[in-house]
Amino acid sequence: MSDFSTFHMSPDVFREQGKAVIEMIARYMETVETYPVMSAVRPGEIRAALPDHAPVTGESFDAILADIAPIIMPGITHWQSPNWFAYFSANTSGPSILGELLSAGLGVQGMLWQTSPACTELETHVLDWLVEMLDLPRHFLSSGRGGGVIQDSASSATLCALLAAREQATSMASNRDGLRGGLIAYASSQAHSSVEKAVKVAGIGSAQLRTIDTDDAFAMDPDNLARTIRRDRDRGLTPFFVSATVGTTSSNAIDPLERIGEICRREKLWLHVDAAMSGTAALCPEFRYIHKGLESADSYCFNPHKWMFTNFDCDCFYVADRAALINSLSLLPEYLRNRATESGAVIDYRDWHVPLGRRFRALKLWFVIRYYGIAGLQYHVRRHVELTRMLVRMIEADGRFVIAAPVPLNLVCFYHKAGDAFTRELMERVNSTGKVYMTHTKLGDRFVMRICVAQSMTEERHVLGAWELIRRTAGEMESP
Amino acid sequence: MSDFSTFHMSPDVFREQGKAVIEMIARYMETVETYPVMSAVRPGEIRAALPDHAPVTGESFDAILADIAPIIMPGITHWQSPNWFAYFSANTSGPSILGELLSAGLGVQGMLWQTSPACTELETHVLDWLVEMLDLPRHFLSSGRGGGVIQDSASSATLCALLAAREQATSMASNRDGLRGGLIAYASSQAHSSVEKAVKVAGIGSAQLRTIDTDDAFAMDPDNLARTIRRDRDRGLTPFFVSATVGTTSSNAIDPLERIGEICRREKLWLHVDAAMSGTAALCPEFRYIHKGLESADSYCFNPHKWMFTNFDCDCFYVADRAALINSLSLLPEYLRNRATESGAVIDYRDWHVPLGRRFRALKLWFVIRYYGIAGLQYHVRRHVELTRMLVRMIEADGRFVIAAPVPLNLVCFYHKAGDAFTRELMERVNSTGKVYMTHTKLGDRFVMRICVAQSMTEERHVLGAWELIRRTAGEMESP
Repeated sequence: MSDFSTFHMSPDVFREQGKAVIEMIARYMETVETYPVMSAVRPGEIRAALPDHAPVTGESFDAILADIAPIIMPGITHWQSPNWFAYFSANTSGPSILGELLSAGLGVQGMLWQTSPACTELETHVLDWLVEMLDLPRHFLSSGRGGGVIQDSASSATLCALLAAREQATSMASNRDGLRGGLIAYASSQAHSSVEKAVKVAGIGSAQLRTIDTDDAFAMDPDNLARTIRRDRDRGLTPFFVSATVGTTSSNAIDPLERIGEICRREKLWLHVDAAMSGTAALCPEFRYIHKGLESADSYCFNPHKWMFTNFDCDCFYVADRAALINSLSLLPEYLRNRATESGAVIDYRDWHVPLGRRFRALKLWFVIRYYGIAGLQYHVRRHVELTRMLVRMIEADGRFVIAAPVPLNLVCFYHKAGDAFTRELMERVNSTGKVYMTHTKLGDRFVMRICVAQSMTEERHVLGAWELIRRTAGEMESP
Repeated sequence: MSDFSTFHMSPDVFREQGKAVIEMIARYMETVETYPVMSAVRPGEIRAALPDHAPVTGESFDAILADIAPIIMPGITHWQSPNWFAYFSANTSGPSILGELLSAGLGVQGMLWQTSPACTELETHVLDWLVEMLDLPRHFLSSGRGGGVIQDSASSATLCALLAAREQATSMASNRDGLRGGLIAYASSQAHSSVEKAVKVAGIGSAQLRTIDTDDAFAMDPDNLARTIRRDRDRGLTPFFVSATVGTTSSNAIDPLERIGEICRREKLWLHVDAAMSGTAALCPEFRYIHKGLESADSYCFNPHKWMFTNFDCDCFYVADRAALINSLSLLPEYLRNRATESGAVIDYRDWHVPLGRRFRALKLWFVIRYYGIAGLQYHVRRHVELTRMLVRMIEADGRFVIAAPVPLNLVCFYHKAGDAFTRELMERVNSTGKVYMTHTKLGDRFVMRICVAQSMTEERHVLGAWELIRRTAGEMESP
């Protein structure tokens, strides 16, 4: 038995304080709707409430917890509120929180199979489950040449896809010799900013990222892609990577994977597909059309931490051929050598991403899938899509507003006919009530409000309430 | 009040199951010493115990938790055991686990100040506290041109340092135009493998990473560094980045920062200092000599998730001039624009690392610092160093063993005089008992065992027990 004297928190104090934190979170779940969704603090206000210096002597955990309500909570913007309609959701859930808790309690490192075999094997297993659950192409299964890994975010997944593609395109010369220029990457004008970030990080340079035009639905135009690739080849450049999106951040546009895939196969380019939020919809057979053509993809990712009730961070990243990824990122210093790795019989996930250390994130994903079951997860996806369609009908029935883009799933972009300034002012007034939170984007040059219906606890009454608030506020602005 | 029907875990079930998980962790803390430290499962054994398909219907949380002991625990290697002497430690603690729990419960995103101001401001504040706590150079404070940010790992911190240096060296041309070759980075032969990984990721290429010789103490030889830089300049190449280490992974060697810093200032190279485990020692004034010369560093990182009782992930990364870092990683797509960001009055941490989304990791760090207090943290650092010195004396008193490198802090490398094969066999026999876990490295060409005394719960009796086991096993091997 360990000695828990001398500053450590004893197991008994942990029991007591653990229950207090569990109770705090349970109360938060019960009351989250009563908070203003968007924090109203001004810059510097939180810091001003904190002491200038760290304490020399330890404090009681009661004292620490007592500071949460007055100091921290005013600076929280409530992503878990059912009135959260901003950005994409970042849902958590009871089973996920408890999975994260257990992972922290076990405190293991999954950098190598050897450093905690369960951490690696549960991850591989659950990611294989998800291939079946989403009906993804079977080449992403770990039983063949592919496989899945949990990354912190789709941004990191995109970077890893780009690195694997870069190494494949240069026959490993860029890893060894460094980049010499000439590599060209492609994504639509609506692709997530992480593609440009990855292109910068990898040394390709943002000028080598071609922005492909989109069609009226803000989806990538494959003809424009094909023409741009041809023009680059004619100039002696080396096209190597295409990032397509299933559910763009701005408007949920779905790039036509089949035609993009044909082009990538013909041109021998790496195709990465980013389905960060929308991939979860493929749990339901009726929404699987969003992945049509995915069999041509070399890599794919979606984020259970967005729409699948698994708290951040949890991005599931798949590759069709893990060798390309591992070749790009693998190193084996002496202090990490071990017989399991050398046997070749195990996966060492540190070779699948940038960091070396890694948490036991598969636990929370396993908990979520088992607690909800496939049927429970499907239920929520369908409910969010239905609520979104209800909202679309209400917006369409109101002659003052226009829907700005197709609504395939759970995101509506719309604007007031009075124009950009009016729409922006409307959104800011609505947000400033604290009753809801929504954000904006630009489509074409137009300022549009976005409502993403994806928060775990959002019910019909929240969507109705948000719409009523928008309508009423617009009315007040029209006739002040 | 939200409706918690339909598959979600209700707050009341969360209360009940949360207590069960807290109890499970408390019991784990009480019994961790009774487990074999290193998991003995064979590859595939954990997966074989898991069902082939995800459940269609949700399961009770009781059923899920009931699987932890039989399915997961056999595959856990116990980083939290007081008999953990392998790699570097990855300590957790009661206050840290509860901070991670609360972070998961609040479920906020800190990508922008705007998306949860408390998440950003608490992080900036606590990282400023740590500058004072470790007596780091004041140019790392956020009040000037520098500042700190939490990264997931030192690997990611090293990559970000390299990217900032790359952009500074090329006047932003590599971000825009891509790399053209010629950039040269430097690290000692004992530097962590993450330097080579970063050089590959960033497109510099591993052939452009110069391996600088070390002295007899395995610390970087500054004369060799200066000569190598000069030779590269003579060849028309562009030296730009030096990574120095305070406490190498292999042997805890401390690179001479003062002399390296002089060279970097003279040559105008970015100096990054990686103090992943050992930085924590600077909590104690008597160990601050390890940072002597740090005022020349452009960036610095250390990991509270190693030796400061804050569970992974929590790497504190500082830059002297945040503009270089932000210039390298910043992008502002329309859907992330907001008035706070545009005012320039706030920090948006998504521009300080690769991922966009980010957890509220400052909570656990704040909890740990407050619960232990500076005095409590110092107590444990001193205790670990004392136990290490005791171990050194015992090894030195035993004529069969040789200490292979200086022991500045809490890591001992040693070998049996009978040679590499004997030492390896000895380590494997000792580990296979499950009573302790230690790992190895190579110093020069010699195979050496490493004992890192840094696990939170390690007491004198654990170190004595480990040494007795090594001695006895060596004796059995000598006269079978």
